[in-house]
Amino acid sequence: MYDVLKGMRVVEGASFIAGPICCQHLLQLGAEVIRFDMIGGGPDFNRWPVADEGGSLYWEGLNKGKKSIAINLARREGRELAIRIATAPGKNGGLFVTNYPVGGFLAHERLAARRPDMITIRVMGWADGRNGVDYTVNAVTGLPSMTGMTDLPEDQPVNHVLPAWDLIAGSYAAFSLMAAERHRRLTGQGGEVRVPLSDIAATTLGHTGQIAEAIVGGGDRPRLGNDLFGALGRDFVTADGRRVMIVAITGRQWASLVQALALGAPVTAIETELGVSFAREGERYRHRARLFDLIAQALLRLSFADAAAAFDRTGVCWSAYRKLSDAVAGEPGFVQGNPVFTPQRHPAGFTYPTPGAAATFTGLNRGPARRAPRLGEHTDEVLGDMLKLSASEIAALHDDGVVAGPGA
Amino acid sequence: MYDVLKGMRVVEGASFIAGPICCQHLLQLGAEVIRFDMIGGGPDFNRWPVADEGGSLYWEGLNKGKKSIAINLARREGRELAIRIATAPGKNGGLFVTNYPVGGFLAHERLAARRPDMITIRVMGWADGRNGVDYTVNAVTGLPSMTGMTDLPEDQPVNHVLPAWDLIAGSYAAFSLMAAERHRRLTGQGGEVRVPLSDIAATTLGHTGQIAEAIVGGGDRPRLGNDLFGALGRDFVTADGRRVMIVAITGRQWASLVQALALGAPVTAIETELGVSFAREGERYRHRARLFDLIAQALLRLSFADAAAAFDRTGVCWSAYRKLSDAVAGEPGFVQGNPVFTPQRHPAGFTYPTPGAAATFTGLNRGPARRAPRLGEHTDEVLGDMLKLSASEIAALHDDGVVAGPGA
Repeated sequence: MYDVLKGMRVVEGASFIAGPICCQHLLQLGAEVIRFDMIGGGPDFNRWPVADEGGSLYWEGLNKGKKSIAINLARREGRELAIRIATAPGKNGGLFVTNYPVGGFLAHERLAARRPDMITIRVMGWADGRNGVDYTVNAVTGLPSMTGMTDLPEDQPVNHVLPAWDLIAGSYAAFSLMAAERHRRLTGQGGEVRVPLSDIAATTLGHTGQIAEAIVGGGDRPRLGNDLFGALGRDFVTADGRRVMIVAITGRQWASLVQALALGAPVTAIETELGVSFAREGERYRHRARLFDLIAQALLRLSFADAAAAFDRTGVCWSAYRKLSDAVAGEPGFVQGNPVFTPQRHPAGFTYPTPGAAATFTGLNRGPARRAPRLGEHTDEVLGDMLKLSASEIAALHDDGVVAGPGA
Repeated sequence: MYDVLKGMRVVEGASFIAGPICCQHLLQLGAEVIRFDMIGGGPDFNRWPVADEGGSLYWEGLNKGKKSIAINLARREGRELAIRIATAPGKNGGLFVTNYPVGGFLAHERLAARRPDMITIRVMGWADGRNGVDYTVNAVTGLPSMTGMTDLPEDQPVNHVLPAWDLIAGSYAAFSLMAAERHRRLTGQGGEVRVPLSDIAATTLGHTGQIAEAIVGGGDRPRLGNDLFGALGRDFVTADGRRVMIVAITGRQWASLVQALALGAPVTAIETELGVSFAREGERYRHRARLFDLIAQALLRLSFADAAAAFDRTGVCWSAYRKLSDAVAGEPGFVQGNPVFTPQRHPAGFTYPTPGAAATFTGLNRGPARRAPRLGEHTDEVLGDMLKLSASEIAALHDDGVVAGPGA
């Protein structure tokens, strides 16, 4: 945890990935995040992966360091409490991140009626309010028909396993919140910012030229197996059967690869034969089958250790493929030996390396990541500190079943 | 383009995706972005996809709306100009986004020597300075061994086609810049913020519980084909051969699906037989083979139109699979009919729908997206306005080959 955003207070009424990871990013830079949940847990409280005993490792990861208040949101009194928490006073408050629907009890207009400078960041499926999650939006993008081995039938989609749209939406929502907060500081104006997964996906494919490609560049990109599109890159196998990913996007990366594998003469021979220069990434891509043959043959004569040494000597851009467990245990600087991670014991009962911010602010102190809360662990603290309720008022809310503490 | 960040001025000395898309996000909310490039173009100037005539649709997409100055960075005078542009005075300036190496001529310390409150956002491959791009970092994560059909050999990786780590890094870098700028406003302090792809990947897998899963939850996740992990979701085919993605992560999504396909009786029969409740997503996942059979059979009796109507009536979370070209032309609100996109003619000579910000700031005016610059189009403007060079000084830089205008 850094102190960069210290003093900022964000309320989260959200579930699953985009909203919670947005607030996790804010928290890791120093913001205080108060998450409210239904008593017994929201729809993501048991999301897999889970530990043997049933605690959700997913929930722990996304919500570590947050303050948790458990509210009976099925009751009017509970919904009123949630609104009061979201709109609580304070110059650095009035920041609410949610995936509740546009027109529900957490509609921006209702919050702004309580606090005119309210900022609401609303993660959505489709911009028009249609149901959508990462995996359904991804089906629309066409990417599943571009993913996977080339011998698959054209109409066989291959889904991604990383919820990339959710994750991009999460960091983009954190960016949007910071922009809205800066704007409020300069103008006094709050407002609602909507971040739909559908627009995250469509703008991404627009910004990277893929929509233009589909319209003016010759239609849909074919399935390429593991080949990198538009330059040189693929997986290869070493003499001792290890698999590596090698990429030569820039001219320098290409020159390094040619040097590492001593391919100068055969590459020049192909260039002469074809009348092209492989200094251009487009030519490396067009004629990749020829180049892949050379590289594959060279690697089959090298052990992994020798290939790695040659690659690192000349500056090739490459990596070994790993299982995640191998990467965690054995890839230097990934988790082991990475100051971004600190061991932390979480409520499910396990101690494991727990990440802080992905960014390193050089010269500032990076404190350790904090553990996940138990559900409702901060119920009384939030009611007392934020809403200034007395001990007897808080006790009455417990007695009425409007709120609950941990273990309820 | 919104005006939310109007007045903020960001200098970009970066190539490929993460740095340029970070600045594209800032620009779309109103920041002025000045990108400097080598005369003739940086290493990403010809990156595919390209138009027939050779202009890069990728470069256009990532750099639209930016001011472009072309500098001979191989010369000392050119590097000095780049440093002066990055560190130019102005309360809302001194913001530099780059993927140049830590210790090179654009090292933060060198910039901070000119402008003590300088903020440098540096996108990197590995945090320790090792070479790495999206595709090599992804090989380490283990995700390629979890992607694709279950009949693949275990050691056959399947690469992603979306450079997800680059894209997450880009929006996270924009968030980091906003946080650093807020911190500077409050404390006067600038600094360097490093955003390595390796830490973006490792923290993401940590935040979503996958690292904990690999350590305490039973090792590496197996390849699941198109099945969603931990809940219910997969692709299915309708009677008329259309492919759809259906997801039931929440209890409500599951209830909607059971209702839409009239599966109440057979689902209850399986629950009774197994002694479980499919209201729990973990049970839906464990016994998914049984449920998939029911759903697949039901869909084979429904046309796509009938399935769509039933799904939308009960609120199922689903989508048809599309090719990207189909999605652009035919998915309502994705590109067609989406106010985020405006047609714009770009330097490669084509007019196509061009995206603005993924976020919608309700109540604020969203101006149209701007076209991409020609390389060096704003060379004289930047030298005159930012560095206050006279016309004769600018002419001398052109004559010396230190800078170039468009078409050079």
